[in-house]
Amino acid sequence: MTRKLFELCGTETERVFSPFCWRTRMALAHKDIKAETIPWRFSEKDAIAPHQSDKVPVLIDGETSIADSWAIANYLEDTYPDRPSLFGGEGGRAMGRMLNWWGDTVVLGGIFPMIAADIHGLLRPADQAYFRKTREARLGKTLEEAAANRDQAVEGFRNALNPMRLTLKTQTYLGGTSPNYADYIVFGPFQWARATSPFKLLKEDDPVYAWREKLLDAFGGMARNSPGYVV
Amino acid sequence: MTRKLFELCGTETERVFSPFCWRTRMALAHKDIKAETIPWRFSEKDAIAPHQSDKVPVLIDGETSIADSWAIANYLEDTYPDRPSLFGGEGGRAMGRMLNWWGDTVVLGGIFPMIAADIHGLLRPADQAYFRKTREARLGKTLEEAAANRDQAVEGFRNALNPMRLTLKTQTYLGGTSPNYADYIVFGPFQWARATSPFKLLKEDDPVYAWREKLLDAFGGMARNSPGYVV
Repeated sequence: MTRKLFELCGTETERVFSPFCWRTRMALAHKDIKAETIPWRFSEKDAIAPHQSDKVPVLIDGETSIADSWAIANYLEDTYPDRPSLFGGEGGRAMGRMLNWWGDTVVLGGIFPMIAADIHGLLRPADQAYFRKTREARLGKTLEEAAANRDQAVEGFRNALNPMRLTLKTQTYLGGTSPNYADYIVFGPFQWARATSPFKLLKEDDPVYAWREKLLDAFGGMARNSPGYVV
Repeated sequence: MTRKLFELCGTETERVFSPFCWRTRMALAHKDIKAETIPWRFSEKDAIAPHQSDKVPVLIDGETSIADSWAIANYLEDTYPDRPSLFGGEGGRAMGRMLNWWGDTVVLGGIFPMIAADIHGLLRPADQAYFRKTREARLGKTLEEAAANRDQAVEGFRNALNPMRLTLKTQTYLGGTSPNYADYIVFGPFQWARATSPFKLLKEDDPVYAWREKLLDAFGGMARNSPGYVV
């Protein structure tokens, strides 16, 4: 059985960059489950419409298709219980829901204005028009205005990572002594930035930087070997 | 065996208000473990010094004494594994560490400036001097200046609760279908505010308000029946 994963890319099909797709990529690797990438672009809504979604990731696993990174993580945990656990039990699954929202609002939402203009530069012209229109509405400013403010914005972003930074003082990963889905939740947005932007989000002496290095090396350097900037 | 818990109070011994002690109170109730309160005030460092701590909570369980709410939660989980779990497995324990830091920095740290002047009003004169000196240094302003700004500060505080608010859209508690230590982490600071200040932190139509109501009712209304304001 060939599993397939629709993953967001721009002009280069190898440069898969969606933060949500990266959460799923890492979750699949954690479970040691292979899936073939189907490159997908913002304007290709028709390709995933049969799977009741207008966004990626969409995972096709035999007769089943699942959209949304959180739903996919839960599907993988429930369908492949004998593989390494993504949540470390039901408490981790429940708390993971909140960490997922923290990852979406604080990490992904914090990074987005700083890299949006760079993402735009990687897209095909048709996708550029869609991206600019929808994202500028969300930002309340132009992509270029958001980028111009990033040296200042990054300070607030780094401060907002404090709960994570303090956690890493006493454990190597958010998941404990080894990484689990809690780590992939936060790593996804960092890998999105790495794939799309040369902007330096973290200082090298930050424990979050050291944590990110470990996840770049995980699964045989899967994330590090994917197209991206050295940041 | 009588277990004992040193708990912070002010002039009234019944009005126990430390956010950290409330985390421990809820954790003990979750495990259905009784502990007798030893009222403790900021100036009574000598009373807990034999237990290698200068802060409460300090739990005395037979020959063992444990300080720090996170350490106590871990102690209870490990020592009483047959009682209801506080973390729901090792994944929950690891992710709980981060939620604990989120609770400390975002929830407790967000509430503190808004209620500090009210806390001061509940203390004995000797404790008031200590509290004003140490807390004003931490705030970088007077207790009264911090209170004067609270109508504005509460907006930012409410926004910062978004990851929790979004989580409560799909599950009743941070711990899932029933509360666990993830909930007590966040409830502790809310109960601290309730015990000390009439200031309204949450709007009544906020899902976080409904969640707080449920925890006020938990364990036979333990928190609701403790001295506090109706907020």
